[in-house]
Amino acid sequence: MPKTDAIIDRDRLWEDIMALGAVTDPARPYTRRSFSQLFLEGRAWLAERFLAAGLSTHIDAAGNLIGRREGEDPQAGTIVIGSHSDSVPSGGRFDGMAGVIAGLAIARDLRDQGIMLGHALEIVDFLAEEPSEYGISCVGSRGITGMLSPADLRLHNKQDETLEAALSRMGGDPGRLAIRTDIAAGFELHIEQGPVLEAKEINIGIVTSIVGITRIEIIFQGTAGHAGTTPMTLRRDPLIAAAGLIGWIRDKAEAFAARGRGHFVATTGIVEVLPNASNVIPKTARIVVDARSEDRDLMEEFCRALDAESLAFADAANVDRLNLTRLSDSMPAACDPALQELLGASADASGRSSMRMASGAGHDMAFISLVAPVAMVFIPCKGGRSHTPEEWASPEALAAGTEVLLDAILSFDSSSR
Amino acid sequence: MPKTDAIIDRDRLWEDIMALGAVTDPARPYTRRSFSQLFLEGRAWLAERFLAAGLSTHIDAAGNLIGRREGEDPQAGTIVIGSHSDSVPSGGRFDGMAGVIAGLAIARDLRDQGIMLGHALEIVDFLAEEPSEYGISCVGSRGITGMLSPADLRLHNKQDETLEAALSRMGGDPGRLAIRTDIAAGFELHIEQGPVLEAKEINIGIVTSIVGITRIEIIFQGTAGHAGTTPMTLRRDPLIAAAGLIGWIRDKAEAFAARGRGHFVATTGIVEVLPNASNVIPKTARIVVDARSEDRDLMEEFCRALDAESLAFADAANVDRLNLTRLSDSMPAACDPALQELLGASADASGRSSMRMASGAGHDMAFISLVAPVAMVFIPCKGGRSHTPEEWASPEALAAGTEVLLDAILSFDSSSR
Repeated sequence: MPKTDAIIDRDRLWEDIMALGAVTDPARPYTRRSFSQLFLEGRAWLAERFLAAGLSTHIDAAGNLIGRREGEDPQAGTIVIGSHSDSVPSGGRFDGMAGVIAGLAIARDLRDQGIMLGHALEIVDFLAEEPSEYGISCVGSRGITGMLSPADLRLHNKQDETLEAALSRMGGDPGRLAIRTDIAAGFELHIEQGPVLEAKEINIGIVTSIVGITRIEIIFQGTAGHAGTTPMTLRRDPLIAAAGLIGWIRDKAEAFAARGRGHFVATTGIVEVLPNASNVIPKTARIVVDARSEDRDLMEEFCRALDAESLAFADAANVDRLNLTRLSDSMPAACDPALQELLGASADASGRSSMRMASGAGHDMAFISLVAPVAMVFIPCKGGRSHTPEEWASPEALAAGTEVLLDAILSFDSSSR
Repeated sequence: MPKTDAIIDRDRLWEDIMALGAVTDPARPYTRRSFSQLFLEGRAWLAERFLAAGLSTHIDAAGNLIGRREGEDPQAGTIVIGSHSDSVPSGGRFDGMAGVIAGLAIARDLRDQGIMLGHALEIVDFLAEEPSEYGISCVGSRGITGMLSPADLRLHNKQDETLEAALSRMGGDPGRLAIRTDIAAGFELHIEQGPVLEAKEINIGIVTSIVGITRIEIIFQGTAGHAGTTPMTLRRDPLIAAAGLIGWIRDKAEAFAARGRGHFVATTGIVEVLPNASNVIPKTARIVVDARSEDRDLMEEFCRALDAESLAFADAANVDRLNLTRLSDSMPAACDPALQELLGASADASGRSSMRMASGAGHDMAFISLVAPVAMVFIPCKGGRSHTPEEWASPEALAAGTEVLLDAILSFDSSSR
């Protein structure tokens, strides 16, 4: 049952968000890239706050900063509240940080109110959730779920530092990476990063699943030619095939989204034409497609259709489809139905409106779901914007999400005693 | 009537082509950019050859290198044979040079055979036919036809040197630019830069007109968004409008080309998407369209349709067409029918096959046509390729074109005495 004591100190929550946001590259706010000196400064600040909230702090083997309090029942396992403190370049102050600071506020509230949980509680700043200089994202949550391979550790940045060395530099211990088996539940609060909650004026998004993301590179190759002297009928222009396919991708994604099998989107975000000169018929056209689905079968159907259609467009333009490559591919991750129910009940009990929704973005909880039941709370953000300095969530929205999360955690803890 | 003495020294012609081609940036053959030190070296070599062929040489006010012999009739005016010795970066050894060296070979042949013409004869290396660092092309041919404006002279390169200063540095005299009124006829031999003559196995292309070239920039603007969290129905993706328009441009150009109103082509050679990241819905999509037509009315019809369709595609994708700008716009230039007849008769008399064709590329003769009747001879080039180190015309093709040109010039001179 929801607890009436799930009221957090809103002002301190907000002050902490602003204080962490202030640790930024001054030349391009808000930037605090993983593995950087600024990132370590942000973490030093966080570790102090963790200690002040009565948490013991340490860096685990995967480089995650953890603030922990023990529970009354040593057999109950650990409740994890986690997100990340790193940002994209010129990003915002909420994507990631909101979830870490919400966890901190919850730990502080429990301490201030003298509430003991049966479970141990960990507030986790997962290492490098955003794409890092080493080519992968979610380094910390991969690291504790068996998803950071030896090959991943050999990835390196432009200065030829391996991820393994960087992990050690962050205080991790790559030789001792191990799968966590003690997590009873994983929770994450995050801004929606989309426009739905704001548009519908709903306080709380309860995430049903985190989409799988498949990125596909397609290169069409034709024959470069003089834009003036090559008759239309003798051309082998790869951009014509790419342009046709871009339109098809948009139409197909809209049709797939309308099928009622969950969130589906597909985006052509990268287009590169060579030589990209006004008076030369292009020689190659390269596109990168980002497709996301809650339903793996639907994703596979989309990929098969993309394969067939890209060949058909190449054929129609008399060019070659040089390759179609999956650059990356992640599975969709379901959130736990029982935890979703708890979040819904907590929202109802506190008079907050809520809706179920998929997460169109990847999150650390997608990896944690491999080892434990997980749940996510979304809060509205202004204009649905994220990864920009204008990223914004109101103090009220943050407090509402944090209180719903705290209440659900109290319910989870008491119901599983 | 065709003269039987129109036989040039093929070996010397070929040797000269190769010798001029050897004056190149060794790091990226074949590069001899206008206004560069290498360009001046090439011209010094050319001036020597002009002198050896009995021509007096000078640089005119527009920076053109001229080799001249006087005619028997001071009232007859001047026959100009011209093209250009500058190249694009990493270009070939024929585009431009073939026409200058053909002129040199003709002058040498006339001298060796002791043939005097009624007209004065000038072999002209027009300055900077290719797009220059100062933003415009055909500097020399513009300069003697009243098409080099004070605003053009104020254009500058990245080192802030004005075109006016550069012109002086090349030996020109920008203060004395004047329109030539003495030209009786202008002739230019050039490689086709397209695949038609080779494919049809025809020796000589007789140019009917030089297309007008209109370059149009179109920018679509939408709203950048997260590729995962923005539902398909809420997107304002400018790339969708651009992709649709690119396909339309191709289809429309093919339909216009099939109308029987002369050469018509349109190419989307430049596509630029911002921010061009796989996980971001683009904010802007910019394309540059290069359209070429022999028929100005057809071009205007195409531009009107492009305007209307780009607005329609923007509307359908719920984005804005930020602008549609003519970056450049040149009129088509007709070649003189009587001179075309002379070239046709010369080809027939020497047993060379010929066909009439438009020039899809711009040439100095397009400007010269503003002050005199002009004609152009195209010769086949391998695979239709140009602006590449693989650019190639055979010694036989070069000799055939030069001999047809010489014969037509003899006919022109004798018929107008």
